[in-house]
Amino acid sequence: MNFCSQCGAPLTRRVPPGDTHPRDVCDHCGTIHYENPKVVVGCLPLWEDQLLLCRRGIEPRVGFWTLPAGFMENDETTAQGAARETLEEACAQVEIGALQALVNIPHINQVHLFYRGQLQSAAHEAGEESLETALFQETDIPWDDLAFRSVRFAMECYYADLRRGSFQVHTLDLGPL
Amino acid sequence: MNFCSQCGAPLTRRVPPGDTHPRDVCDHCGTIHYENPKVVVGCLPLWEDQLLLCRRGIEPRVGFWTLPAGFMENDETTAQGAARETLEEACAQVEIGALQALVNIPHINQVHLFYRGQLQSAAHEAGEESLETALFQETDIPWDDLAFRSVRFAMECYYADLRRGSFQVHTLDLGPL
Repeated sequence: MNFCSQCGAPLTRRVPPGDTHPRDVCDHCGTIHYENPKVVVGCLPLWEDQLLLCRRGIEPRVGFWTLPAGFMENDETTAQGAARETLEEACAQVEIGALQALVNIPHINQVHLFYRGQLQSAAHEAGEESLETALFQETDIPWDDLAFRSVRFAMECYYADLRRGSFQVHTLDLGPL
Repeated sequence: MNFCSQCGAPLTRRVPPGDTHPRDVCDHCGTIHYENPKVVVGCLPLWEDQLLLCRRGIEPRVGFWTLPAGFMENDETTAQGAARETLEEACAQVEIGALQALVNIPHINQVHLFYRGQLQSAAHEAGEESLETALFQETDIPWDDLAFRSVRFAMECYYADLRRGSFQVHTLDLGPL
């Protein structure tokens, strides 16, 4: 960040009075530009005993399989964001259920939230950012070709909870590879 | 947002190609400036059968009681953020436990996460943003003088779960008052 988005003046990086963290501060108009982690929202879209996955059509990890997920937008809830991403990436209507996993990835300033989701029909197809979509039985899941560690964690937790017959929210903190 | 924080040129508000939402776009350097919800992290700091609350010394809701909580920072996990806020606002050391509540507040683009926390000692005092701090038995909690609906929800869920003898993550979506 080089210039003030309010007034266009050059920014200075320093700790403002009463603050504990360095910020980009505008000495012209006084605006303090905070930067905070972003929330990624996604879901495990379930149809009978199958899980809907998307093969990524964009970087990072193009060609690898993932749960539908993406950056939460302003003016929506976490569940609305998870349903929106499922519609955008897999053209599938899903009813969002309970939270399955919360994954912190502090080195990239992201928090990933994955919900269980009930597909409203078996209909799905690749959205703009996907190469293909497919429903998988657990035994057919391409575990070696998953795109992200947070996605793998959410899926592993889901199947472990399913076998146990009891669901809970699972948390994971990820560092750099 | 009026000027590009990368190059200082004036911004245009429009939907970029392949996108679904209007963004602040720089026609000079091509940067797209995304705006996303912020995460607020806090905790229920517990000491034996007492809960530590802070009376707010800053707006909004100055003078009202709250759980220690604040905006999650870059380079930290949600639990680290909740512990940091407890140290900053109540000068108290807390070990963060499980997630108690997730509250969406889409009209102000916030997601609030409240964890249960175990105080490491009974020591506490007002930090810079608090007027005072105090440990409360459930029956002494100033329910009519709480600062925020999300805080009330987290506290109500905690005591309901405590009575039930079983804890889970509770979710709430809040609209404008």
